[in-house]
Amino acid sequence: MTAPLHEAHPTGAGRALPNTQQGMRRRNLARVMHTVSAEGPLSRAAVASRIGLTRAAVSTLVDELIRSGLLEELGPERPGRVGRPGSALAVSGHGPAGIGAEVGVDHLAVCAVDLRGEVRSRAVRHGANRGRAPKPVIEELHELVRQVVAEAEREGLWPAGLAIAVPGLVARDARTVVRAPNLDWRDADLGELLPADLPLTVGNEADFGALAELWLGDGTPRDFLHVSAEIGIGAAVVVDGGLLRGTRGFAGELGHVPVRPDGPQCPCGGRGCLEQYAGEDAVLRAAGLEPGEDRVGLLAGRAAEGDEDVRRALRDAGTALGIALTGAVNLLDPESVVLGGALAGLAPWLLPSLEAELDQRTAGPACPVSVSRLGPEGPLLGAAHSVVRAVLDDPAAVAERA
Amino acid sequence: MTAPLHEAHPTGAGRALPNTQQGMRRRNLARVMHTVSAEGPLSRAAVASRIGLTRAAVSTLVDELIRSGLLEELGPERPGRVGRPGSALAVSGHGPAGIGAEVGVDHLAVCAVDLRGEVRSRAVRHGANRGRAPKPVIEELHELVRQVVAEAEREGLWPAGLAIAVPGLVARDARTVVRAPNLDWRDADLGELLPADLPLTVGNEADFGALAELWLGDGTPRDFLHVSAEIGIGAAVVVDGGLLRGTRGFAGELGHVPVRPDGPQCPCGGRGCLEQYAGEDAVLRAAGLEPGEDRVGLLAGRAAEGDEDVRRALRDAGTALGIALTGAVNLLDPESVVLGGALAGLAPWLLPSLEAELDQRTAGPACPVSVSRLGPEGPLLGAAHSVVRAVLDDPAAVAERA
Repeated sequence: MTAPLHEAHPTGAGRALPNTQQGMRRRNLARVMHTVSAEGPLSRAAVASRIGLTRAAVSTLVDELIRSGLLEELGPERPGRVGRPGSALAVSGHGPAGIGAEVGVDHLAVCAVDLRGEVRSRAVRHGANRGRAPKPVIEELHELVRQVVAEAEREGLWPAGLAIAVPGLVARDARTVVRAPNLDWRDADLGELLPADLPLTVGNEADFGALAELWLGDGTPRDFLHVSAEIGIGAAVVVDGGLLRGTRGFAGELGHVPVRPDGPQCPCGGRGCLEQYAGEDAVLRAAGLEPGEDRVGLLAGRAAEGDEDVRRALRDAGTALGIALTGAVNLLDPESVVLGGALAGLAPWLLPSLEAELDQRTAGPACPVSVSRLGPEGPLLGAAHSVVRAVLDDPAAVAERA
Repeated sequence: MTAPLHEAHPTGAGRALPNTQQGMRRRNLARVMHTVSAEGPLSRAAVASRIGLTRAAVSTLVDELIRSGLLEELGPERPGRVGRPGSALAVSGHGPAGIGAEVGVDHLAVCAVDLRGEVRSRAVRHGANRGRAPKPVIEELHELVRQVVAEAEREGLWPAGLAIAVPGLVARDARTVVRAPNLDWRDADLGELLPADLPLTVGNEADFGALAELWLGDGTPRDFLHVSAEIGIGAAVVVDGGLLRGTRGFAGELGHVPVRPDGPQCPCGGRGCLEQYAGEDAVLRAAGLEPGEDRVGLLAGRAAEGDEDVRRALRDAGTALGIALTGAVNLLDPESVVLGGALAGLAPWLLPSLEAELDQRTAGPACPVSVSRLGPEGPLLGAAHSVVRAVLDDPAAVAERA
């Protein structure tokens, strides 16, 4: 079973639900969940007034959501008031949890996030995955999933779905990694490598990072370009609060935008692609350093110490990013550019040259560039939260499996 | 009065109408119009079965649309059948018309398109507009509008709105030309220069060209990048059948994507922008020709005659287009690229080098490039049809003014 990533232009909860009485009930369940999630704790009467349904109708919906473990009652609300005291409703901290996972070039990570958005358990394993076949990597990842799920279950949660972030292009089936050059994977159907016990969504790490920024960031606009990096450089285009996915699901390949068309040959077939100037390996090479395990930490540490070679390499990477982003900003006219992932940690040394290039080259007022607070945590959190959002968007589907 | 251009992700007719009984009536009027427009002539019963309403409900809606002059009855349908003969309904050829207008660098054009999509009158005036102030240009354009409207009225049509295509950036108010470098216009509110008798939409010519391609093209996909040129180079990004407009309405500025970051200075402030290699002036210069009035005709004529300088200049322009499009395709993953406007006429000499560059540089299967059948007519037709589409999308709004 697979679920699509959040698409560009979702028009809110339950958009795709059919226009029947059953569809109406499911949409109303979603409206109750979203209202309590955004504004709770709330009484039934407060929910009814907010979504414009009768108190009786809301009570039926709420009872169903409580039975499924998606909402819980916190006990009588304001007992001093006249009339039957309402019981305050909150999103359950003991119901479904979203399981997020990340396959990194140098690590595997898994976490469980409850409906309230809190991380309730997590596991990380360091070790190089480059060149390993998908099967052993996914088996190892699944072991971490089992640990995290077991820990979540001890806290009364149950897994509603698993979303895996990968550093590569994912087909629109949201299962198949079409190409992940920095893992050396090609056409790997991760669904085949996992037990079918959990609904699975596989997505690009930059896409999940962008969604995390959208959902958890501080004042993130609804139209932005999210740029992240591990070894490669990826981007995600968010339009009106949803991901722009592209025909094949491959949108956002900023790393292969030509920066200097006669520049060095890139494994993609092109020349002078952004990754040849601003990818981690390229920056390490330019700084005269050996690629090790904690590449970002190494670069940030040296730059902070004042290493002039590293600073120059990062400055040049910022310039290349600025050139590629000029093209992207001209094409997409986003409200802002957000640097996430590994780039967030290197921002102090990348930003000056990046912004100078962008300001000088873009017609009209320059596009503001900000740095993600989530940094390298973004993709993992985005993956887990995408499962949580899917529960809020269609609680009936989850309740049926509860 | 202004109406927005079609946005990305319209979910069909009357999407923005409120969820009330009145909104329901308006949505149903739109469903009837769209059904008859797409499949007519149809009887009332056939319309009812297609949209899932009762024959009585459809009759009420149809009567309203006939009274407003949006539908007409063609007379009894299949009179040999048992029962009361149904009268076939068709979209009116004597009702509202969309008035499209184009401000080109070297011409002004206006046309009227009826609800059936037929051009019913048109007027063109040649003459350089570069450097002229907006006021006299728009006054001249308005004279053409009056001619075209008068001719349409003689045929029993009445103007439902005016849409103007301009070669520049238009603010989201759909009235103000923020910047049109090839006209030398800046912050010109065209609404102020026109009488307020017609609903007005001002839009970018590349956007209208892309909409024409979407609505009138042969098998155009719902996700594509439309590239056009007059003196500048513009593009429009179509996602899921709607325009991607950008935060300020400026998306699609392909002409200022850096192709060679250290290349010649561009008036936009950047260096080595695509326009410096593939804009008409740049190509003429590279071919050793003087910019005259019919620049595309001149280039196409010389190229067809085998002029090696012109062919080389066009080949190099194709290479630059291929580099810029590589970036765009990597970012957007469109289903295809469509060359429209002036580029359509030069395609035979641009395409080989453009496609070679794109194929070599883009990871994965290359993005197909096609040539618009509409060519330079696209923006004008797109403008007129955008008014027609607005009538089909909310016929009640037009009926109120009829």
